[in-house]
Amino acid sequence: MGNKGILLVVSGFSGAGKGTVIKELIHRYDNYALSISATTRSPREGESDGREYFFKTKEAFEQMISEDALIEYACYVGNYYGTPKAYVEEQLSLGKDVILEIEVQGAWKVKKQFPDTLLLFLSPPDARTLRERLVKRGTESAEVIESRLSRASQEAEGIEVYDYFIINDNLNECVESIHQIIQAEHSRTFRNQKLIHTIQVELKEFQKG
Amino acid sequence: MGNKGILLVVSGFSGAGKGTVIKELIHRYDNYALSISATTRSPREGESDGREYFFKTKEAFEQMISEDALIEYACYVGNYYGTPKAYVEEQLSLGKDVILEIEVQGAWKVKKQFPDTLLLFLSPPDARTLRERLVKRGTESAEVIESRLSRASQEAEGIEVYDYFIINDNLNECVESIHQIIQAEHSRTFRNQKLIHTIQVELKEFQKG
Repeated sequence: MGNKGILLVVSGFSGAGKGTVIKELIHRYDNYALSISATTRSPREGESDGREYFFKTKEAFEQMISEDALIEYACYVGNYYGTPKAYVEEQLSLGKDVILEIEVQGAWKVKKQFPDTLLLFLSPPDARTLRERLVKRGTESAEVIESRLSRASQEAEGIEVYDYFIINDNLNECVESIHQIIQAEHSRTFRNQKLIHTIQVELKEFQKG
Repeated sequence: MGNKGILLVVSGFSGAGKGTVIKELIHRYDNYALSISATTRSPREGESDGREYFFKTKEAFEQMISEDALIEYACYVGNYYGTPKAYVEEQLSLGKDVILEIEVQGAWKVKKQFPDTLLLFLSPPDARTLRERLVKRGTESAEVIESRLSRASQEAEGIEVYDYFIINDNLNECVESIHQIIQAEHSRTFRNQKLIHTIQVELKEFQKG
């Protein structure tokens, strides 16, 4: 119903399947636009610049910081991650629901700047499954896995600031559930103030007539 | 995801089609229970006691008030309307999403007593359609119609306290939209605190192990 897009933060534990869920969401529905983050971390195999991330040098990233060209940025496992501002604002004004895949600390910063932002937290059904997924991923050393588990425990303490808590136990259900949440959010009263105001004014006119 | 039902208030302009929408919602899905209101107004043709309303005398209604057996009650066009408490609490504890069809002033009272209550406001797409629907209904005198329009204008001023604003332009779409909203609401973080707490505790255990 609203004609302006919703800014949407998707966070979740490492291993909760955020990337896959978001990819599928964008593949199925055309109301979404993915915000591509800038990062200083090295590309993984199969990742390419401008698709998964904008891969930047530390110097280039710090240049963006100084030019205020990022909505938020954070340092995570020794690398910078940030959200370029221009693209997000453009897509929102086109009515697209813009998805940011960012960490808990970044989510908070976005919400402070844009209070209408919707914060979604993705989680495996339980902590045991989370650990299994991290181990199976196999692209990281045991040390990194331990560090991520520690990180997950910290992140878990931040879940309460999120608007929605979504279990990713089944890809299809999770994708549909998120889509349903976004559709529902478009009917939020505060996202329809213009329309409501028009009806209020029209009803007053009838009273006078 | 949550295992406790959601208390759900559906309000809207007279002529917004609340009754039809709610009936259809309950017909299609088995997660809903309708709270039947008590009222002192006379039954309309086709209405029967215990189905549309519990029809009460003024004395019997005031007895319920004094026994604190109502979640809320209000006087509207010279008659009492109220929500019997016991049935609502029973259905919520069974995991049912309980629907209350009540007026704006009652909605507020319910929300104050039960802060997790979800407030939905149903509206025709514009004020002109609202007037047309009121006139076409044809069961009321011109005077009652005018009084309802005046009432509608007052109600419109209360829309902002509602969580969701839903246009009823097409019955099927409206019913699906409400169902979608309720499903989405079950994923609200504050409705899943028990599960979140369990995950937080489990993750801390792993840290220690």
